[in-house]
Amino acid sequence: MSATKTIYDGHIVKLELEEGKWEIVRHADAVAILLLSEGGEMKLVRQRRRAVDADTLEAPAGLIDEGETPEAAARRELQEEVGLDADLTLLTRFYTSPGFCDEQLYVFEAKNPRESRLPLDEDEEIEEVWMAPQTLLDGLRGGTVQSSSPTVAAALYALQRLAGQQ
Amino acid sequence: MSATKTIYDGHIVKLELEEGKWEIVRHADAVAILLLSEGGEMKLVRQRRRAVDADTLEAPAGLIDEGETPEAAARRELQEEVGLDADLTLLTRFYTSPGFCDEQLYVFEAKNPRESRLPLDEDEEIEEVWMAPQTLLDGLRGGTVQSSSPTVAAALYALQRLAGQQ
Repeated sequence: MSATKTIYDGHIVKLELEEGKWEIVRHADAVAILLLSEGGEMKLVRQRRRAVDADTLEAPAGLIDEGETPEAAARRELQEEVGLDADLTLLTRFYTSPGFCDEQLYVFEAKNPRESRLPLDEDEEIEEVWMAPQTLLDGLRGGTVQSSSPTVAAALYALQRLAGQQ
Repeated sequence: MSATKTIYDGHIVKLELEEGKWEIVRHADAVAILLLSEGGEMKLVRQRRRAVDADTLEAPAGLIDEGETPEAAARRELQEEVGLDADLTLLTRFYTSPGFCDEQLYVFEAKNPRESRLPLDEDEEIEEVWMAPQTLLDGLRGGTVQSSSPTVAAALYALQRLAGQQ
């Protein structure tokens, strides 16, 4: 029997302590979307991220709402953040940080985009950017770009796909 | 001026509330290491992860200790988890979940491995596995494998490198 104590139960984060020593963060699962232009550039969004005190460049992404499927969440986020609907295929899924957090991420590829805009959440402000995946990865290694793990996974998938087309 | 309240300050996690509404998890930065065999298989470690209630397959990885460089942490973790030292090159770095957490991950590639073992932390128990990167990615998509974001980034880098060698 494991004794679990809830330390905090908030808006997006729940913090638990298991057996008096294991700190576990509960967080909703999330989605991110890889969308490439015909020239092989990746659709990114630049936004202020308070947690890391930086403007990050990330793939369109967001949390899965209660009762929503990962694919429906990806479709909604793509419409909210870049005003597009598309055909979606799951590329991969993984835990962002399984050492202490249960958040799981689903990375989708988007094809055949068409205009379809939904309003952004009121506390979000984003700028759309097109960037070559290799430029993003070079900027990350050099420290000039701040980004997230699903964005890196999407960029690497894009390079794989582009390499296969040559 | 932003008012920040500390809700919890624990062993590996610190939880803050900014301006009464932004939940931010503070967590040490971490490293993960991509190590390939001559046949192109990836060195993975299987371990129990309480936060996700699963046995995960992950690249050798761990937290950066206070005052330690990312490269020194990667060298130490490789010696602790798989008993090898190696030449290390930074592949990429990124935030695991910048929407709410400041953890940054550094992914290194390891070459020219040689035996050099350091003892594991006493609360760690791991099993070493070799696996083809594509098998790992297929298992993730199908749901039969649980893994982490740095592991996925490393697997995709491995595929890029292997594709370049053909």
